[in-house]
Amino acid sequence: MPEDKFLKKTRPISTHTQVCAVIGNPVAHSLSPAIHNAAFAALDLDFVYVAFRVENVASALSGMRALENFRGLSITIPHKMEAMKHVDHVEEVDRHIGSINTVISENGNLLGLGTDGPGALKALMDAGVEIAGKQILMIGAGGAARAIAFTLARQGRPAAIFLLDINKPVLNQLAADLAAKTDTPVLSGQMTDAALRDAMAQADIVIHCTPTGMHPREGVSLVPPSLFRPGQAVFDVVYTPLETRMLADARAKGLQVISGVEMFINQAVLQFERFTGVDAPVEVMRMVVMAHLGKSAK
Amino acid sequence: MPEDKFLKKTRPISTHTQVCAVIGNPVAHSLSPAIHNAAFAALDLDFVYVAFRVENVASALSGMRALENFRGLSITIPHKMEAMKHVDHVEEVDRHIGSINTVISENGNLLGLGTDGPGALKALMDAGVEIAGKQILMIGAGGAARAIAFTLARQGRPAAIFLLDINKPVLNQLAADLAAKTDTPVLSGQMTDAALRDAMAQADIVIHCTPTGMHPREGVSLVPPSLFRPGQAVFDVVYTPLETRMLADARAKGLQVISGVEMFINQAVLQFERFTGVDAPVEVMRMVVMAHLGKSAK
Repeated sequence: MPEDKFLKKTRPISTHTQVCAVIGNPVAHSLSPAIHNAAFAALDLDFVYVAFRVENVASALSGMRALENFRGLSITIPHKMEAMKHVDHVEEVDRHIGSINTVISENGNLLGLGTDGPGALKALMDAGVEIAGKQILMIGAGGAARAIAFTLARQGRPAAIFLLDINKPVLNQLAADLAAKTDTPVLSGQMTDAALRDAMAQADIVIHCTPTGMHPREGVSLVPPSLFRPGQAVFDVVYTPLETRMLADARAKGLQVISGVEMFINQAVLQFERFTGVDAPVEVMRMVVMAHLGKSAK
Repeated sequence: MPEDKFLKKTRPISTHTQVCAVIGNPVAHSLSPAIHNAAFAALDLDFVYVAFRVENVASALSGMRALENFRGLSITIPHKMEAMKHVDHVEEVDRHIGSINTVISENGNLLGLGTDGPGALKALMDAGVEIAGKQILMIGAGGAARAIAFTLARQGRPAAIFLLDINKPVLNQLAADLAAKTDTPVLSGQMTDAALRDAMAQADIVIHCTPTGMHPREGVSLVPPSLFRPGQAVFDVVYTPLETRMLADARAKGLQVISGVEMFINQAVLQFERFTGVDAPVEVMRMVVMAHLGKSAK
Protein backbone atom coordinates (compact mmCIF):
# COMPACT_ATOMS: atom_id res chain seq x y z
CA MET A 1 0.00 0.00 0.00
CA PRO A 2 1.28 3.44 -0.85
CA GLU A 3 0.64 4.87 2.60
CA ASP A 4 2.70 2.20 4.35
CA LYS A 5 5.60 4.56 4.68
CA PHE A 6 3.47 6.89 6.79
CA LEU A 7 1.90 4.15 8.86
CA LYS A 8 5.28 3.18 10.22
CA LYS A 9 5.09 6.43 12.13
CA THR A 10 1.63 5.73 13.53
CA ARG A 11 1.40 6.64 17.21
CA PRO A 12 0.15 4.13 19.71
CA ILE A 13 -3.50 4.81 20.47
CA SER A 14 -3.96 6.20 23.96
CA THR A 15 -6.87 7.28 26.12
CA HIS A 16 -6.33 10.76 24.69
CA THR A 17 -6.50 9.76 21.03
CA GLN A 18 -9.04 11.88 19.14
CA VAL A 19 -11.43 9.91 16.95
CA CYS A 20 -12.72 10.99 13.54
CA ALA A 21 -14.87 8.99 11.15
CA VAL A 22 -16.80 9.01 7.94
CA ILE A 23 -20.49 8.14 8.15
CA GLY A 24 -22.57 7.28 5.12
CA ASN A 25 -24.32 4.36 3.52
CA PRO A 26 -22.46 2.65 1.99
CA VAL A 27 -18.99 3.59 3.25
CA ALA A 28 -17.01 0.52 2.22
CA HIS A 29 -15.41 2.30 -0.74
CA SER A 30 -14.59 5.56 1.06
CA LEU A 31 -11.01 6.75 0.69
CA SER A 32 -11.35 8.97 3.76
CA PRO A 33 -9.80 6.59 6.33
CA ALA A 34 -6.73 6.08 4.14
CA ILE A 35 -6.36 9.82 3.44
CA HIS A 36 -6.83 11.12 6.97
CA ASN A 37 -4.86 8.41 8.77
CA ALA A 38 -1.91 8.98 6.45
CA ALA A 39 -2.11 12.70 7.19
CA PHE A 40 -2.34 12.15 10.95
CA ALA A 41 0.69 9.85 10.79
CA ALA A 42 2.66 12.28 8.64
CA LEU A 43 2.25 14.97 11.32
CA ASP A 44 2.48 12.53 14.26
CA LEU A 45 -0.93 13.64 15.54
CA ASP A 46 -2.78 11.64 18.21
CA PHE A 47 -5.82 11.04 16.00
CA VAL A 48 -7.41 8.03 14.37
CA TYR A 49 -10.00 7.94 11.57
CA VAL A 50 -12.47 5.09 11.06
CA ALA A 51 -15.59 4.40 8.98
CA PHE A 52 -19.13 3.73 10.17
CA ARG A 53 -22.00 2.70 7.95
CA VAL A 54 -25.00 4.53 9.40
CA GLU A 55 -28.74 4.41 8.83
CA ASN A 56 -29.91 6.41 11.85
CA VAL A 57 -28.11 9.74 11.57
CA ALA A 58 -29.80 11.26 14.61
CA SER A 59 -28.53 8.48 16.89
CA ALA A 60 -25.09 8.53 15.34
CA LEU A 61 -24.75 12.26 16.03
CA SER A 62 -26.23 11.87 19.50
CA GLY A 63 -23.56 9.26 20.16
CA MET A 64 -20.86 11.57 18.83
CA ARG A 65 -22.05 14.22 21.29
CA ALA A 66 -21.85 11.74 24.20
CA LEU A 67 -18.54 10.12 23.29
CA GLU A 68 -15.85 12.57 24.33
CA ASN A 69 -12.70 12.24 22.17
CA PHE A 70 -15.00 11.95 19.15
CA ARG A 71 -13.67 14.98 17.34
CA GLY A 72 -14.99 15.07 13.80
CA LEU A 73 -17.09 13.40 11.15
CA SER A 74 -17.06 13.40 7.41
CA ILE A 75 -20.65 13.07 6.22
CA THR A 76 -21.22 11.37 2.92
CA ILE A 77 -24.16 10.21 0.81
CA PRO A 78 -27.02 9.87 1.70
CA HIS A 79 -26.70 11.83 4.96
CA LYS A 80 -25.47 15.28 3.90
CA MET A 81 -28.86 16.92 4.24
CA GLU A 82 -30.20 14.89 7.18
CA ALA A 83 -27.08 15.50 9.30
CA MET A 84 -27.72 19.24 9.19
CA LYS A 85 -30.92 18.74 11.23
CA HIS A 86 -29.10 17.12 14.17
CA VAL A 87 -26.21 19.46 14.86
CA ASP A 88 -26.23 22.46 17.17
CA HIS A 89 -24.89 25.09 14.79
CA VAL A 90 -24.56 25.35 11.01
CA GLU A 91 -22.65 28.10 9.21
CA GLU A 92 -24.98 30.51 7.38
CA VAL A 93 -23.67 29.66 3.91
CA ASP A 94 -24.17 25.96 4.62
CA ARG A 95 -27.75 26.58 5.71
CA HIS A 96 -28.33 28.17 2.31
CA ILE A 97 -26.60 25.30 0.53
CA GLY A 98 -28.79 22.92 2.49
CA SER A 99 -26.22 20.23 3.24
CA ILE A 100 -23.03 19.66 5.19
CA ASN A 101 -20.15 17.23 4.77
CA THR A 102 -18.38 17.87 8.09
CA VAL A 103 -19.31 17.82 11.78
CA ILE A 104 -16.94 19.01 14.49
CA SER A 105 -17.56 18.26 18.16
CA GLU A 106 -16.48 21.05 20.50
CA ASN A 107 -17.05 19.74 24.03
CA GLY A 108 -20.20 17.96 22.95
CA ASN A 109 -21.46 20.93 20.93
CA LEU A 110 -21.82 19.88 17.27
CA LEU A 111 -20.87 22.32 14.50
CA GLY A 112 -21.91 21.45 10.95
CA LEU A 113 -20.22 22.88 7.88
CA GLY A 114 -19.42 22.12 4.26
CA THR A 115 -16.01 21.87 2.65
CA ASP A 116 -17.13 20.82 -0.83
CA GLY A 117 -17.73 24.39 -2.04
CA PRO A 118 -14.58 25.77 -0.41
CA GLY A 119 -12.70 22.74 -1.79
CA ALA A 120 -13.82 23.64 -5.30
CA LEU A 121 -12.92 27.30 -4.81
CA LYS A 122 -9.47 26.32 -3.56
CA ALA A 123 -9.01 24.00 -6.55
CA LEU A 124 -9.77 26.89 -8.92
CA MET A 125 -7.56 29.34 -7.02
CA ASP A 126 -4.67 26.84 -6.77
CA ALA A 127 -4.89 26.46 -10.56
CA GLY A 128 -4.62 30.24 -10.92
CA VAL A 129 -8.13 30.64 -12.28
CA GLU A 130 -9.39 34.17 -11.69
CA ILE A 131 -13.02 34.22 -10.57
CA ALA A 132 -13.65 37.90 -9.86
CA GLY A 133 -15.47 39.52 -12.77
CA LYS A 134 -15.80 36.30 -14.73
CA GLN A 135 -18.85 34.63 -16.28
CA ILE A 136 -19.38 31.22 -14.74
CA LEU A 137 -21.42 28.49 -16.38
CA MET A 138 -22.59 25.69 -14.13
CA ILE A 139 -23.91 22.59 -15.86
CA GLY A 140 -26.13 20.84 -13.34
CA ALA A 141 -27.89 22.40 -10.36
CA GLY A 142 -27.87 19.53 -7.83
CA GLY A 143 -26.11 19.21 -4.47
CA ALA A 144 -22.55 19.73 -5.73
CA ALA A 145 -23.64 22.72 -7.81
CA ARG A 146 -25.39 24.30 -4.83
CA ALA A 147 -22.26 24.03 -2.70
CA ILE A 148 -19.98 25.40 -5.41
CA ALA A 149 -22.34 28.14 -6.64
CA PHE A 150 -22.96 29.53 -3.14
CA THR A 151 -19.28 29.48 -2.30
CA LEU A 152 -18.23 31.19 -5.54
CA ALA A 153 -21.06 33.72 -5.34
CA ARG A 154 -20.19 34.71 -1.77
CA GLN A 155 -16.42 34.50 -1.90
CA GLY A 156 -15.38 34.78 -5.54
CA ARG A 157 -17.18 37.91 -6.81
CA PRO A 158 -17.92 36.53 -10.29
CA ALA A 159 -19.63 38.82 -12.83
CA ALA A 160 -22.50 36.33 -13.11
CA ILE A 161 -23.42 32.71 -12.65
CA PHE A 162 -25.37 30.95 -15.36
CA LEU A 163 -27.13 27.73 -14.36
CA LEU A 164 -28.25 24.97 -16.72
CA ASP A 165 -30.10 21.78 -15.74
CA ILE A 166 -32.66 19.49 -17.30
CA ASN A 167 -34.59 19.42 -14.00
CA LYS A 168 -36.57 22.65 -13.92
CA PRO A 169 -37.66 22.64 -10.23
CA VAL A 170 -34.09 21.95 -9.06
CA LEU A 171 -32.78 24.64 -11.40
CA ASN A 172 -35.32 27.24 -10.33
CA GLN A 173 -34.77 26.53 -6.65
CA LEU A 174 -31.03 27.08 -6.85
CA ALA A 175 -31.45 30.19 -9.00
CA ALA A 176 -33.98 31.64 -6.56
CA ASP A 177 -31.86 30.78 -3.51
CA LEU A 178 -28.73 32.33 -5.03
CA ALA A 179 -30.65 35.46 -6.02
CA ALA A 180 -32.11 35.78 -2.52
CA LYS A 181 -28.97 35.06 -0.51
CA THR A 182 -26.09 36.47 -2.57
CA ASP A 183 -25.32 39.64 -4.51
CA THR A 184 -24.15 37.76 -7.60
CA PRO A 185 -26.27 38.13 -10.77
CA VAL A 186 -27.79 34.73 -11.55
CA LEU A 187 -29.24 33.53 -14.84
CA SER A 188 -30.71 30.13 -15.47
CA GLY A 189 -32.09 28.11 -18.30
CA GLN A 190 -33.32 24.63 -18.99
CA MET A 191 -30.59 22.55 -20.53
CA THR A 192 -31.06 22.31 -24.31
CA ASP A 193 -28.57 22.22 -27.17
CA ALA A 194 -29.37 25.86 -27.95
CA ALA A 195 -29.18 27.00 -24.33
CA LEU A 196 -25.85 25.24 -23.85
CA ARG A 197 -24.46 26.76 -27.06
CA ASP A 198 -25.47 30.24 -26.02
CA ALA A 199 -24.13 29.79 -22.51
CA MET A 200 -20.82 28.35 -23.69
CA ALA A 201 -20.41 31.34 -25.99
CA GLN A 202 -20.32 33.66 -22.99
CA ALA A 203 -18.70 31.55 -20.25
CA ASP A 204 -15.19 32.22 -18.97
CA ILE A 205 -15.31 29.29 -16.52
CA VAL A 206 -17.27 26.10 -17.16
CA ILE A 207 -18.09 23.94 -14.14
CA HIS A 208 -19.65 20.55 -14.77
CA CYS A 209 -21.68 19.29 -11.77
CA THR A 210 -23.57 16.25 -13.06
CA PRO A 211 -22.49 12.58 -12.87
CA THR A 212 -22.16 12.38 -16.67
CA GLY A 213 -18.90 10.74 -17.67
CA MET A 214 -18.34 9.08 -14.29
CA HIS A 215 -16.95 5.56 -14.09
CA PRO A 216 -18.24 3.09 -15.20
CA ARG A 217 -19.98 5.19 -17.85
CA GLU A 218 -16.92 7.00 -19.05
CA GLY A 219 -16.37 8.47 -22.50
CA VAL A 220 -19.45 10.68 -22.60
CA SER A 221 -19.68 14.45 -22.21
CA LEU A 222 -22.53 16.92 -22.14
CA VAL A 223 -20.46 19.53 -24.01
CA PRO A 224 -19.74 19.08 -27.72
CA PRO A 225 -16.02 19.90 -28.27
CA SER A 226 -16.97 22.51 -30.87
CA LEU A 227 -18.47 24.69 -28.14
CA PHE A 228 -15.21 25.25 -26.26
CA ARG A 229 -13.67 28.68 -26.84
CA PRO A 230 -10.07 29.85 -26.32
CA GLY A 231 -9.37 31.19 -22.85
CA GLN A 232 -12.00 29.16 -21.03
CA ALA A 233 -11.16 27.20 -17.88
CA VAL A 234 -13.04 23.91 -17.50
CA PHE A 235 -13.63 22.20 -14.17
CA ASP A 236 -15.37 18.82 -13.84
CA VAL A 237 -16.51 17.66 -10.38
CA VAL A 238 -16.28 14.05 -11.61
CA TYR A 239 -12.94 12.48 -10.63
CA THR A 240 -13.34 8.88 -11.74
CA PRO A 241 -11.73 8.88 -14.25
CA LEU A 242 -9.24 11.55 -13.21
CA GLU A 243 -9.66 13.10 -16.67
CA THR A 244 -13.20 12.83 -17.98
CA ARG A 245 -14.12 12.98 -21.63
CA MET A 246 -15.18 16.61 -21.12
CA LEU A 247 -11.78 17.54 -19.71
CA ALA A 248 -9.93 15.59 -22.39
CA ASP A 249 -11.92 17.44 -25.08
CA ALA A 250 -11.21 20.79 -23.44
CA ARG A 251 -7.52 19.99 -23.04
CA ALA A 252 -7.35 18.99 -26.72
CA LYS A 253 -8.63 22.47 -27.51
CA GLY A 254 -5.81 23.97 -25.47
CA LEU A 255 -7.98 25.02 -22.56
CA GLN A 256 -7.04 24.98 -18.89
CA VAL A 257 -8.67 21.98 -17.17
CA ILE A 258 -9.13 21.21 -13.47
CA SER A 259 -10.03 17.68 -12.40
CA GLY A 260 -12.64 17.03 -9.72
CA VAL A 261 -9.93 15.19 -7.83
CA GLU A 262 -8.55 18.58 -6.78
CA MET A 263 -11.91 19.43 -5.19
CA PHE A 264 -11.98 16.00 -3.59
CA ILE A 265 -8.48 16.41 -2.15
CA ASN A 266 -9.22 19.95 -0.99
CA GLN A 267 -12.48 19.08 0.76
CA ALA A 268 -10.49 16.50 2.74
CA VAL A 269 -7.69 19.01 3.37
CA LEU A 270 -10.17 21.55 4.73
CA GLN A 271 -11.84 18.89 6.89
CA PHE A 272 -8.47 17.80 8.25
CA GLU A 273 -7.66 21.37 9.20
CA ARG A 274 -10.98 21.68 11.03
CA PHE A 275 -10.44 18.35 12.80
CA THR A 276 -6.90 19.11 13.93
CA GLY A 277 -6.41 22.87 13.88
CA VAL A 278 -3.14 22.51 11.99
CA ASP A 279 -2.14 22.89 8.34
CA ALA A 280 -2.80 19.71 6.39
CA PRO A 281 0.04 17.76 4.74
CA VAL A 282 -1.54 18.30 1.32
CA GLU A 283 1.01 16.36 -0.69
CA VAL A 284 0.66 13.30 1.55
CA MET A 285 -3.11 13.40 1.14
CA ARG A 286 -2.80 13.90 -2.61
CA MET A 287 -0.41 10.95 -2.88
CA VAL A 288 -2.85 8.63 -1.06
CA VAL A 289 -5.76 9.76 -3.25
CA MET A 290 -3.79 9.39 -6.46
CA ALA A 291 -2.42 5.99 -5.48
CA HIS A 292 -5.91 4.67 -4.74
CA LEU A 293 -7.58 6.20 -7.78
CA GLY A 294 -4.74 5.12 -10.05
CA LYS A 295 -5.01 1.60 -8.67
CA SER A 296 -8.75 1.36 -9.05
CA ALA A 297 -8.56 2.72 -12.60
CA LYS A 298 -6.51 -0.26 -13.72
CA MET B 1 6.76 1.86 25.35
CA PRO B 2 6.57 -1.84 25.97
CA GLU B 3 3.95 -2.48 23.30
CA ASP B 4 5.98 -0.84 20.54
CA LYS B 5 7.08 -4.19 19.24
CA PHE B 6 3.47 -5.11 18.53
CA LEU B 7 2.53 -1.77 17.07
CA LYS B 8 4.97 -2.25 14.23
CA LYS B 9 2.53 -4.85 12.99
CA THR B 10 -0.48 -2.54 13.23
CA ARG B 11 -2.71 -2.88 10.18
CA PRO B 12 -3.73 0.18 8.22
CA ILE B 13 -7.21 1.24 9.26
CA SER B 14 -9.75 0.59 6.54
CA THR B 15 -13.46 1.14 6.05
CA HIS B 16 -13.92 -2.38 7.45
CA THR B 17 -11.96 -1.81 10.67
CA GLN B 18 -14.02 -2.80 13.72
CA VAL B 19 -14.02 -0.25 16.50
CA CYS B 20 -13.98 -1.03 20.22
CA ALA B 21 -13.70 1.44 23.08
CA VAL B 22 -13.76 1.92 26.81
CA ILE B 23 -16.36 4.32 28.18
CA GLY B 24 -16.24 5.66 31.71
CA ASN B 25 -15.60 8.86 33.59
CA PRO B 26 -12.71 9.39 33.92
CA VAL B 27 -10.99 7.18 31.34
CA ALA B 28 -7.65 8.95 31.04
CA HIS B 29 -5.85 6.33 33.13
CA SER B 30 -7.44 3.27 31.53
CA LEU B 31 -4.99 0.60 30.37
CA SER B 32 -7.61 -0.91 28.06
CA PRO B 33 -6.53 0.83 24.82
CA ALA B 34 -2.93 -0.30 25.33
CA ILE B 35 -3.96 -3.88 26.20
CA HIS B 36 -6.49 -4.44 23.42
CA ASN B 37 -4.58 -2.68 20.64
CA ALA B 38 -1.48 -4.74 21.44
CA ALA B 39 -3.61 -7.89 21.28
CA PHE B 40 -5.23 -6.86 17.97
CA ALA B 41 -1.80 -6.15 16.52
CA ALA B 42 -0.36 -9.43 17.79
CA LEU B 43 -3.06 -11.35 15.90
CA ASP B 44 -3.13 -8.95 12.93
CA LEU B 45 -6.86 -8.31 13.44
CA ASP B 46 -8.62 -5.43 11.69
CA PHE B 47 -9.74 -3.80 14.95
CA VAL B 48 -8.91 -0.61 16.78
CA TYR B 49 -9.64 0.30 20.41
CA VAL B 50 -10.08 3.87 21.66
CA ALA B 51 -11.28 5.61 24.84
CA PHE B 52 -14.27 7.89 25.29
CA ARG B 53 -15.06 9.82 28.44
CA VAL B 54 -18.85 9.65 28.70
CA GLU B 55 -21.45 11.33 30.88
CA ASN B 56 -24.60 10.39 28.96
CA VAL B 57 -24.52 6.59 28.77
CA ALA B 58 -27.88 6.32 27.00
CA SER B 59 -26.70 8.51 24.11
CA ALA B 60 -23.35 6.77 23.94
CA LEU B 61 -25.02 3.37 23.58
CA SER B 62 -27.57 4.76 21.14
CA GLY B 63 -24.65 5.99 19.08
CA MET B 64 -22.95 2.61 19.26
CA ARG B 65 -26.14 1.04 17.93
CA ALA B 66 -26.21 3.47 14.99
CA LEU B 67 -22.52 3.38 14.12
CA GLU B 68 -21.97 0.13 12.26
CA ASN B 69 -18.41 -1.18 12.71
CA PHE B 70 -18.70 -0.25 16.39
CA ARG B 71 -18.19 -3.74 17.72
CA GLY B 72 -17.64 -3.64 21.45
CA LEU B 73 -17.37 -1.53 24.56
CA SER B 74 -15.65 -1.96 27.87
CA ILE B 75 -17.76 -0.22 30.51
CA THR B 76 -15.99 1.18 33.51
CA ILE B 77 -16.81 3.28 36.57
CA PRO B 78 -19.30 4.91 37.04
CA HIS B 79 -21.36 3.38 34.21
CA LYS B 80 -21.45 -0.36 34.97
CA MET B 81 -24.96 -0.30 36.38
CA GLU B 82 -26.43 2.42 34.16
CA ALA B 83 -25.23 0.76 30.95
CA MET B 84 -27.31 -2.31 31.74
CA LYS B 85 -30.48 -0.24 31.31
CA HIS B 86 -29.70 0.74 27.73
CA VAL B 87 -28.78 -2.54 26.05
CA ASP B 88 -31.15 -4.95 24.35
CA HIS B 89 -30.19 -8.14 26.17
CA VAL B 90 -28.34 -8.95 29.39
CA GLU B 91 -27.26 -12.44 30.42
CA GLU B 92 -29.29 -13.77 33.35
CA VAL B 93 -26.33 -13.98 35.72
CA ASP B 94 -25.41 -10.38 34.91
CA ARG B 95 -28.97 -9.24 35.64
CA HIS B 96 -28.58 -10.80 39.09
CA ILE B 97 -25.19 -9.20 39.55
CA GLY B 98 -26.73 -5.90 38.54
CA SER B 99 -23.88 -4.53 36.45
CA ILE B 100 -22.03 -5.18 33.21
CA ASN B 101 -18.55 -4.33 32.02
CA THR B 102 -18.94 -5.30 28.36
CA VAL B 103 -21.30 -4.44 25.51
CA ILE B 104 -21.20 -6.23 22.17
CA SER B 105 -23.01 -4.89 19.11
CA GLU B 106 -24.44 -7.59 16.86
CA ASN B 107 -25.90 -5.78 13.86
CA GLY B 108 -27.08 -2.93 16.02
CA ASN B 109 -28.45 -5.24 18.73
CA LEU B 110 -26.63 -4.56 21.99
CA LEU B 111 -25.71 -7.45 24.29
CA GLY B 112 -24.53 -6.62 27.80
CA LEU B 113 -22.46 -8.97 29.92
CA GLY B 114 -19.89 -9.05 32.69
CA THR B 115 -16.39 -10.51 32.55
CA ASP B 116 -15.25 -9.48 36.04
CA GLY B 117 -16.71 -12.54 37.76
CA PRO B 118 -15.59 -14.98 35.05
CA GLY B 119 -12.20 -13.23 35.09
CA ALA B 120 -11.87 -13.94 38.81
CA LEU B 121 -13.00 -17.54 38.36
CA LYS B 122 -10.44 -18.04 35.58
CA ALA B 123 -7.73 -16.51 37.79
CA LEU B 124 -8.51 -19.03 40.54
CA MET B 125 -8.71 -21.95 38.12
CA ASP B 126 -5.51 -20.96 36.33
CA ALA B 127 -3.80 -20.95 39.74
CA GLY B 128 -5.07 -24.49 40.33
CA VAL B 129 -7.38 -23.46 43.17
CA GLU B 130 -10.15 -26.03 43.59
CA ILE B 131 -13.51 -24.34 44.25
CA ALA B 132 -15.94 -27.28 44.31
CA GLY B 133 -16.76 -28.28 47.87
CA LYS B 134 -14.71 -25.46 49.41
CA GLN B 135 -15.66 -22.84 51.98
CA ILE B 136 -15.27 -19.37 50.48
CA LEU B 137 -14.93 -16.23 52.57
CA MET B 138 -15.61 -12.96 50.80
CA ILE B 139 -14.52 -9.83 52.61
CA GLY B 140 -16.60 -7.00 51.19
CA ALA B 141 -20.01 -7.31 49.51
CA GLY B 142 -19.88 -4.47 46.95
CA GLY B 143 -19.87 -4.56 43.16
CA ALA B 144 -16.76 -6.71 42.71
CA ALA B 145 -17.98 -9.15 45.38
CA ARG B 146 -21.38 -9.44 43.68
CA ALA B 147 -19.79 -10.33 40.35
CA ILE B 148 -17.40 -12.85 41.87
CA ALA B 149 -19.88 -14.42 44.32
CA PHE B 150 -22.54 -14.98 41.66
CA THR B 151 -20.03 -16.46 39.25
CA LEU B 152 -18.50 -18.81 41.82
CA ALA B 153 -21.90 -19.80 43.21
CA ARG B 154 -23.26 -20.66 39.75
CA GLN B 155 -20.17 -22.13 38.13
CA GLY B 156 -17.84 -23.24 40.92
CA ARG B 157 -20.03 -25.41 43.19
CA PRO B 158 -18.46 -24.24 46.46
CA ALA B 159 -19.66 -25.83 49.73
CA ALA B 160 -20.67 -22.39 51.01
CA ILE B 161 -20.00 -18.69 50.62
CA PHE B 162 -19.55 -16.59 53.72
CA LEU B 163 -19.94 -12.83 53.29
CA LEU B 164 -18.55 -10.15 55.57
CA ASP B 165 -19.05 -6.39 55.19
CA ILE B 166 -19.33 -3.40 57.49
CA ASN B 167 -22.29 -2.12 55.46
CA LYS B 168 -25.28 -4.14 56.61
CA PRO B 169 -27.77 -3.23 53.84
CA VAL B 170 -25.22 -4.04 51.11
CA LEU B 171 -24.33 -7.28 52.87
CA ASN B 172 -27.93 -8.36 53.33
CA GLN B 173 -28.84 -7.55 49.76
CA LEU B 174 -26.07 -9.71 48.30
CA ALA B 175 -26.80 -12.55 50.75
CA ALA B 176 -30.51 -12.46 49.88
CA ASP B 177 -29.84 -12.26 46.13
CA LEU B 178 -27.41 -15.18 46.22
CA ALA B 179 -29.82 -17.25 48.30
CA ALA B 180 -32.67 -16.51 45.90
CA LYS B 181 -30.82 -17.00 42.63
CA THR B 182 -28.27 -19.74 43.30
CA ASP B 183 -28.18 -23.14 45.03
CA THR B 184 -25.05 -22.32 47.03
CA PRO B 185 -25.44 -22.06 50.82
CA VAL B 186 -24.78 -18.48 51.84
CA LEU B 187 -23.92 -17.14 55.28
CA SER B 188 -23.28 -13.54 56.13
CA GLY B 189 -22.21 -11.46 59.05
CA GLN B 190 -21.35 -7.90 59.84
CA MET B 191 -17.62 -7.39 59.75
CA THR B 192 -16.18 -7.39 63.29
CA ASP B 193 -12.91 -8.73 64.70
CA ALA B 194 -14.75 -11.72 66.12
CA ALA B 195 -16.74 -12.43 62.96
CA LEU B 196 -13.60 -12.25 60.84
CA ARG B 197 -11.73 -14.56 63.23
CA ASP B 198 -14.51 -17.13 63.13
CA ALA B 199 -14.86 -16.92 59.36
CA MET B 200 -11.11 -17.21 58.76
CA ALA B 201 -11.06 -20.34 60.93
CA GLN B 202 -13.36 -22.08 58.48
CA ALA B 203 -12.40 -20.60 55.09
CA ASP B 204 -10.55 -22.57 52.44
CA ILE B 205 -10.48 -19.63 50.04
CA VAL B 206 -10.30 -16.00 51.14
CA ILE B 207 -11.35 -13.38 48.60
CA HIS B 208 -10.80 -9.73 49.49
CA CYS B 209 -13.18 -7.40 47.63
CA THR B 210 -12.75 -3.99 49.30
CA PRO B 211 -10.38 -1.18 48.26
CA THR B 212 -8.33 -1.57 51.46
CA GLY B 213 -4.63 -1.67 50.69
CA MET B 214 -4.99 -0.03 47.27
CA HIS B 215 -2.45 2.54 46.10
CA PRO B 216 -1.87 5.18 47.42
CA ARG B 217 -2.98 3.76 50.78
CA GLU B 218 -0.82 0.66 50.63
CA GLY B 219 0.49 -1.26 53.59
CA VAL B 220 -2.83 -1.90 55.30
CA SER B 221 -4.83 -5.14 55.46
CA LEU B 222 -8.17 -6.09 56.95
CA VAL B 223 -6.83 -9.53 57.94
CA PRO B 224 -4.41 -9.85 60.86
CA PRO B 225 -1.63 -12.26 59.78
CA SER B 226 -2.33 -14.50 62.75
CA LEU B 227 -5.70 -15.47 61.24
CA PHE B 228 -4.23 -17.16 58.15
CA ARG B 229 -4.28 -20.97 58.36
CA PRO B 230 -2.23 -23.53 56.42
CA GLY B 231 -3.81 -24.63 53.15
CA GLN B 232 -5.80 -21.46 52.52
CA ALA B 233 -5.70 -19.74 49.16
CA VAL B 234 -5.90 -15.93 49.30
CA PHE B 235 -7.11 -13.76 46.44
CA ASP B 236 -7.14 -9.96 46.57
CA VAL B 237 -9.08 -8.03 43.90
CA VAL B 238 -6.77 -5.04 44.51
CA TYR B 239 -3.93 -4.98 41.95
CA THR B 240 -2.16 -1.73 42.74
CA PRO B 241 0.22 -2.73 44.23
CA LEU B 242 0.53 -6.07 42.46
CA GLU B 243 1.07 -7.66 45.88
CA THR B 244 -0.96 -6.02 48.62
CA ARG B 245 -0.11 -6.16 52.29
CA MET B 246 -2.75 -8.90 52.68
CA LEU B 247 -1.14 -11.04 50.00
CA ALA B 248 2.36 -10.41 51.34
CA ASP B 249 1.22 -11.50 54.80
CA ALA B 250 -0.43 -14.63 53.40
CA ARG B 251 2.61 -15.46 51.30
CA ALA B 252 4.84 -15.07 54.38
CA LYS B 253 2.66 -17.72 56.03
CA GLY B 254 3.30 -20.03 53.10
CA LEU B 255 -0.17 -19.70 51.60
CA GLN B 256 -1.07 -19.64 47.94
CA VAL B 257 -1.80 -16.07 46.83
CA ILE B 258 -3.48 -14.77 43.68
CA SER B 259 -3.12 -11.10 42.75
CA GLY B 260 -6.08 -9.10 41.48
CA VAL B 261 -4.02 -8.39 38.39
CA GLU B 262 -4.90 -11.90 37.19
CA MET B 263 -8.59 -11.02 37.39
CA PHE B 264 -7.87 -7.73 35.63
CA ILE B 265 -5.98 -9.45 32.82
CA ASN B 266 -8.62 -12.16 32.50
CA GLN B 267 -11.57 -9.77 32.35
CA ALA B 268 -9.78 -8.12 29.41
CA VAL B 269 -8.99 -11.50 27.85
CA LEU B 270 -12.64 -12.53 28.03
CA GLN B 271 -13.75 -9.18 26.58
CA PHE B 272 -11.25 -9.54 23.76
CA GLU B 273 -12.61 -12.97 22.92
CA ARG B 274 -16.16 -11.60 22.83
CA PHE B 275 -15.07 -8.66 20.67
CA THR B 276 -13.15 -10.77 18.15
CA GLY B 277 -14.40 -14.34 18.40
CA VAL B 278 -10.84 -15.66 18.56
CA ASP B 279 -8.58 -16.83 21.38
CA ALA B 280 -6.83 -13.91 23.04
CA PRO B 281 -3.03 -13.61 23.02
CA VAL B 282 -2.96 -13.77 26.82
CA GLU B 283 0.77 -13.38 27.25
CA VAL B 284 0.84 -10.26 25.08
CA MET B 285 -1.95 -8.74 27.16
CA ARG B 286 -0.26 -9.74 30.40
CA MET B 287 3.01 -8.18 29.24
CA VAL B 288 1.31 -4.85 28.49
CA VAL B 289 -0.46 -4.82 31.85
CA MET B 290 2.68 -5.72 33.77
CA ALA B 291 4.78 -3.18 31.91
CA HIS B 292 2.30 -0.39 32.68
CA LEU B 293 1.72 -1.37 36.30
CA GLY B 294 5.41 -1.90 36.89
CA LYS B 295 6.10 1.52 35.41
CA SER B 296 3.42 3.32 37.40
CA ALA B 297 4.56 1.62 40.60
CA LYS B 298 7.98 3.28 40.34
